[in-house]
Amino acid sequence: MNQVFNQFSDIQTKEIAPGFFSKIIHTENNTINFIEVKAGCVSDMHQHINHQCAFVIEGTFELTVDGVTQLLDKGNYAVIPPNVIHGGRAITDCKLIDIFNPVRQDFKLL
Amino acid sequence: MNQVFNQFSDIQTKEIAPGFFSKIIHTENNTINFIEVKAGCVSDMHQHINHQCAFVIEGTFELTVDGVTQLLDKGNYAVIPPNVIHGGRAITDCKLIDIFNPVRQDFKLL
Repeated sequence: MNQVFNQFSDIQTKEIAPGFFSKIIHTENNTINFIEVKAGCVSDMHQHINHQCAFVIEGTFELTVDGVTQLLDKGNYAVIPPNVIHGGRAITDCKLIDIFNPVRQDFKLL
Repeated sequence: MNQVFNQFSDIQTKEIAPGFFSKIIHTENNTINFIEVKAGCVSDMHQHINHQCAFVIEGTFELTVDGVTQLLDKGNYAVIPPNVIHGGRAITDCKLIDIFNPVRQDFKLL
């Protein structure tokens, strides 16, 4: 159960992939992942049952979804359906927000 | 149905309250609201069935939830349970992200 007012500094930062430093919030139905990525670091192609929205708050991230590659920055975003293979690479240092529905139960094990 | 790659510039900006300029994304289960608020503008106290997470990306926003008031900036965030009365005021110009679950059907009528 989340309290109403929370501090990011109270969330442990986890390196969920090399160079991907996450602060992860689980609510009842969603997982929200605030990620800082170092330039050049890669998220290998993967898939999951969770619907995902991916937003770039700072920097430029090259995202590939179902074989189609596009550069994402503040001007655009991606909506990734369940079970679709995707991955990406930080072109610059980036700040990303991923929103997953339902909860990423696998992230609770990290 | 959302396409995978999207442009924020393709989303119509709606002034959902005076000084609150929103770009709203509906997915299957969530509504994601990117808001730019002018300093001094107020969101009157209100409530809804939707669970809400509120993040400040830029600026400082004074949020009141169930009678408790706190300043939010990049360092903190709020998790607002369903049906709890809340509202707030932009102390500075702000960029906010609100995530609602389930979809804010009322926003589709704006």
